[in-house]
Amino acid sequence: MASGNTEAAVLVTGGAGYIGSHTVVELLEKNYNVVVIDNCSNAVKSQNCKAESICRIEKFTNKTIQFYDVDLLDVESLRKVFQKHSFFSVIHFAGLKAVGESNEIPLKYYRVNIAGTLNLLDMMKEFKVNNIVFSSSATVYGSPNYLPMDEKHPVGQNLTNCYGRTKYFLEQLLTDVYNAEKDWNVIILRYFNPVGSHKSGQIGEDPSGPPNNLMPYVAQVAGGRREALNVFGNDYDTLDGTGVRDYIHVIDLALGHLAALKKLKENCGLKIYNLGSGVPYSVLQMVAAFEKASGKKINYKIAPRRSGDLASVYGDASLAEKELNWKATRGLDEMCEDLWRWQCQNPKGFNTP
Amino acid sequence: MASGNTEAAVLVTGGAGYIGSHTVVELLEKNYNVVVIDNCSNAVKSQNCKAESICRIEKFTNKTIQFYDVDLLDVESLRKVFQKHSFFSVIHFAGLKAVGESNEIPLKYYRVNIAGTLNLLDMMKEFKVNNIVFSSSATVYGSPNYLPMDEKHPVGQNLTNCYGRTKYFLEQLLTDVYNAEKDWNVIILRYFNPVGSHKSGQIGEDPSGPPNNLMPYVAQVAGGRREALNVFGNDYDTLDGTGVRDYIHVIDLALGHLAALKKLKENCGLKIYNLGSGVPYSVLQMVAAFEKASGKKINYKIAPRRSGDLASVYGDASLAEKELNWKATRGLDEMCEDLWRWQCQNPKGFNTP
Repeated sequence: MASGNTEAAVLVTGGAGYIGSHTVVELLEKNYNVVVIDNCSNAVKSQNCKAESICRIEKFTNKTIQFYDVDLLDVESLRKVFQKHSFFSVIHFAGLKAVGESNEIPLKYYRVNIAGTLNLLDMMKEFKVNNIVFSSSATVYGSPNYLPMDEKHPVGQNLTNCYGRTKYFLEQLLTDVYNAEKDWNVIILRYFNPVGSHKSGQIGEDPSGPPNNLMPYVAQVAGGRREALNVFGNDYDTLDGTGVRDYIHVIDLALGHLAALKKLKENCGLKIYNLGSGVPYSVLQMVAAFEKASGKKINYKIAPRRSGDLASVYGDASLAEKELNWKATRGLDEMCEDLWRWQCQNPKGFNTP
Repeated sequence: MASGNTEAAVLVTGGAGYIGSHTVVELLEKNYNVVVIDNCSNAVKSQNCKAESICRIEKFTNKTIQFYDVDLLDVESLRKVFQKHSFFSVIHFAGLKAVGESNEIPLKYYRVNIAGTLNLLDMMKEFKVNNIVFSSSATVYGSPNYLPMDEKHPVGQNLTNCYGRTKYFLEQLLTDVYNAEKDWNVIILRYFNPVGSHKSGQIGEDPSGPPNNLMPYVAQVAGGRREALNVFGNDYDTLDGTGVRDYIHVIDLALGHLAALKKLKENCGLKIYNLGSGVPYSVLQMVAAFEKASGKKINYKIAPRRSGDLASVYGDASLAEKELNWKATRGLDEMCEDLWRWQCQNPKGFNTP
């Protein structure tokens, strides 16, 4: 499938974020015409008013990115972007994603994630852009009825947080839109746990405040920014008692979006795919792998279980392999090595001079 | 519980609509200080720019209603209403409700019902109004696992239309808000099938276009406005093969809202109640009852089942009886007589001169 700058552009919402920025790099490498919007609510900004992640990508790819500091809740600014460019598709990453915070400020999560997406979809309809790839999450599966979870696993039941509910509701909303607008193509991607970063060490996951996710925390402990890792629960019914998850290299995840874009061009209708490695690792296995990759000892202590945490969550991504010709190929060592490079080069994340 | 004009007002959103207007009448009769907002998207407007239903209520109650033609999507107009009045509680009826239409224009339904409610809740938070009664629907139960359905019946599964999904999502959203804002009181009322109208014959259900619900259609056939009723399916597993529902007189339903307001004053937290009669009637039983009340023969023909229709849906409203000291007391004959009076006096609904 040819792709180049003469084609209609791909709009990447939330393109300055962790998964978004890595996807932008892969799109640029395949010569897609990329337009990024991001409200930078979770991003460090550079002096030229672009997000720092975007500036760094421009430097190491030697390409210019069309970037707009636009909030999806600002309809008029969003409209201007749609007026200026002709889009083939949207890849919609933008949204709030902190699980704990979502339960504290639900109105903000519903506003940003749901009303923001409604604005985007209304604009797509207005400008006859009818292809979308949507960032969903394995969190929509709730507590697993069976493992590994495939796409037929029930969704929306026993969700323990408001973040997960916004993702579930948006999946339903997109399904309703697809059913009403038969010429739309909608691909919903359910992510497992992305880790790692680009080989350049120039972009990576940069949580503001203490990381909510395991591996950024581990990396910051290894780098000396945090004292010790809390391991929440070591009495789960797993191989070593700690929680088991499905980690996927962020580059593999990014490449899943490029595979989805190709699928959209086949007028695929509505499709839902897991994007994961399918390989379960425990917290202690991840810690051990990171110690090996970094050569650093990770201090950790066992803490009580957190409410809402599940023992084991991992997926079956064989449908994506079959239909998108995509699978995760980067293993645990590579995830840890790439994360460690990012951490070493950027001890303060994007605020590192 | 005393209530009078010196008290903070009750804001009724969608107060010009069918259930809203009947609730406004009952609130006025108990001397509540009532403020109504309605965008009149589904209402006939009178010359003084109020909704016709509101004007008629003012005439037969001899009271003035503070009415604003305000859309919940218009945040600045909504804020002006909150600035002008001090509200004890909101009763939130406003929303789109046509099941079939909801599947055709889902973006509009999500926009009006969900983004509209988000605007209302944000405004309540801004003005520290923390009591709300929300219009939900028995449709959130989906296909019944058991009958009669009580409030513990699973919700959100196998919903066949976008309207029902917006109600379900709003229930979840309100639950999330309650969990985050512990000083809020939230009562979710799940309506079964309201019929009938006020004894004055001055207000009633006035669908624009062919009615989606059974009884307004039956009344229009009796009144000569429609030729014949389509009975969708007579091979269901019910007493006579036609669909069975739980009909409740709209005045009983309205009084359920007054009972909920009293409950809010007890700082009740989050509560969910069915409002129904608990008495199942089939389509043909309803037709027979209406023939008796009107003295007219109702022409009907058997048509194929409609996709998404269920055989039997009826509720257990004993929790509302126990906790709200409320129950439906108006029987089938009264529902039909009151509906027929409305139909005879208003053959063209609120457009009748």
